[in-house]
Amino acid sequence: MNKLIRKAVQKMNPYTPGEQPNDPGIVKLNTNENPYPPSPKIAAVMQRPFETLRLYPDPLCVRLREGIARLHGCRVEQVFVGNGSDEVLALCARAFVEPAGSIGYFEPSYSLYPVLAAIQELETRPVRLTRDFGWTMPPRYSASLFFLANPNAPTSIQYPAATVARFCRSFAGVVVIDEAYVDFASYHCANLALSLGNVLVARTMSKSYSLAGLRLGYALGPEALISALYKIKDSYNVDRLAQAIALAAITDTEHMKRNVKSITKTRAKAVKELEKRGFRVFPSETNFLWVRPPAVNAETLFAALRKKKILVRYFPGALTGDYLRVTIGTDAQMAALLTALDR
Amino acid sequence: MNKLIRKAVQKMNPYTPGEQPNDPGIVKLNTNENPYPPSPKIAAVMQRPFETLRLYPDPLCVRLREGIARLHGCRVEQVFVGNGSDEVLALCARAFVEPAGSIGYFEPSYSLYPVLAAIQELETRPVRLTRDFGWTMPPRYSASLFFLANPNAPTSIQYPAATVARFCRSFAGVVVIDEAYVDFASYHCANLALSLGNVLVARTMSKSYSLAGLRLGYALGPEALISALYKIKDSYNVDRLAQAIALAAITDTEHMKRNVKSITKTRAKAVKELEKRGFRVFPSETNFLWVRPPAVNAETLFAALRKKKILVRYFPGALTGDYLRVTIGTDAQMAALLTALDR
Repeated sequence: MNKLIRKAVQKMNPYTPGEQPNDPGIVKLNTNENPYPPSPKIAAVMQRPFETLRLYPDPLCVRLREGIARLHGCRVEQVFVGNGSDEVLALCARAFVEPAGSIGYFEPSYSLYPVLAAIQELETRPVRLTRDFGWTMPPRYSASLFFLANPNAPTSIQYPAATVARFCRSFAGVVVIDEAYVDFASYHCANLALSLGNVLVARTMSKSYSLAGLRLGYALGPEALISALYKIKDSYNVDRLAQAIALAAITDTEHMKRNVKSITKTRAKAVKELEKRGFRVFPSETNFLWVRPPAVNAETLFAALRKKKILVRYFPGALTGDYLRVTIGTDAQMAALLTALDR
Repeated sequence: MNKLIRKAVQKMNPYTPGEQPNDPGIVKLNTNENPYPPSPKIAAVMQRPFETLRLYPDPLCVRLREGIARLHGCRVEQVFVGNGSDEVLALCARAFVEPAGSIGYFEPSYSLYPVLAAIQELETRPVRLTRDFGWTMPPRYSASLFFLANPNAPTSIQYPAATVARFCRSFAGVVVIDEAYVDFASYHCANLALSLGNVLVARTMSKSYSLAGLRLGYALGPEALISALYKIKDSYNVDRLAQAIALAAITDTEHMKRNVKSITKTRAKAVKELEKRGFRVFPSETNFLWVRPPAVNAETLFAALRKKKILVRYFPGALTGDYLRVTIGTDAQMAALLTALDR
């Protein structure tokens, strides 16, 4: 132990991001990136004089928040913008949970949640999903903050809006509905964040807007919670380029929706093809599939695909070890996956 | 009180960034931005295809860290890259101070330090500087972490390297030497971070590299401390564009040095002119001056200059209320300031 470093930091395991291989020959279906480019409107922003980079960005991202507020039909004060939705989630853990408090989340779900709790030495209260990744809340459950990924990852399942609403209304703490994948689903829960006092919805531009490289996430919710996030964020958390590019992207939602449509079309075809081959495929409301391979062990299949330069994601562990998470790529990428599987 | 928000967050006062007025007619000498543009090598990066923004950035910023390591003659493992040096400082407060620990810093110094302590409900142990902003350590002083801004802000004074080295060697906790302004000074203390086990040096590209709009800061120091920062940072804290632009900027240190030279030349002239007018000017090793106006009250002068569209920075309070902080702008901007003062 190094006495200069907090014990909890030394003991914890950090979040492990998916592999980012440099080999351009790899079919990359491992990190739920969008296979299509972001809006061409971004090009205009990139061609603006770079000289203004010498000036600090707007610390409150007002113009971008105005754009997001228009998009969701809410007030600017109900919008927080962060350096990726990961920053939004981390700030929630820091703003809404006292040192003696606790953080809840599904098991399995986004593996960042327990890491955020570990950083702050907070108690975790995971809610184990059923064998089919269904959601039943244990009786008398409580926590200070609940990260509710919906659609959930890595399972791709979205829980019904009515179930989510009922949970939010009965829960005494803050609920952060993490809607990272919601643009690929048929409904969303933003209305809960804009009407209840204890609910935030977190969104990211990494998936549907094809901007994972930019780091832009935001939260919608009651003004009191949003201003708490503003009090503790880094002064200039979102840089000038990110603010301008994100604004250009959300003024072109048509482009985003076209990409989403291509992906959901490819998704439908991939589901059929995988089911034909005996895979169990969960009903996906995201840009990825959660599948259980037939006959062959998931880890073995992961390694075999990797050898053929097809990268998917494997999560070891009792709950997830029988499954693979496969990002929906282009039709050509999915065809490459199927060909590899057929061999 | 809102029971959903941590009490400490509700009680604290957030950091107040300097004004960012939109009026282009304003002579902006209030936030220590660089009046000259960043390296033109950045333009090439901006013209690269924006399509790659769909992919996540390198979570470990390896290529940029290799560049920074070359710059400082150290190993990649001794470099941490953050979303502005503010993120680096905040991560230090979270990685190196147990809940029962304390944070030290000068008074006056960068006003973010006590805010970082307040967010985590940590004890603060400020070290009051002498009337002339000199540094004497109280006997038997201790803290878990000391933020040592050198050159200090807003006082512009740099403490001798030998004094800093002696302090670092005798201090039992972590020392973060915040060298945000060091490129405008005649020496730096990076060697302490690269040789002692308890010292980090924080740098920013906001000032000398004219990249305040980008958010790029880094820390140099012992591998054990650097890896603790990596464990608790957000997974993808620095975006793709920022990594590429910062790498372009540090491969053109000549450009940065030319800008620094212009600024220090203007600084020397401004010192003379202000002293001629009866101002007390502290010996500046930064891109700003810390001045006490003659006869007239500092706050009154601040307001009068503001009316003439010249923005400087005024910090109310017993220690700082008699002074103004004036960023070194272009020669033309400084002439405008002097003309306004003469009226």
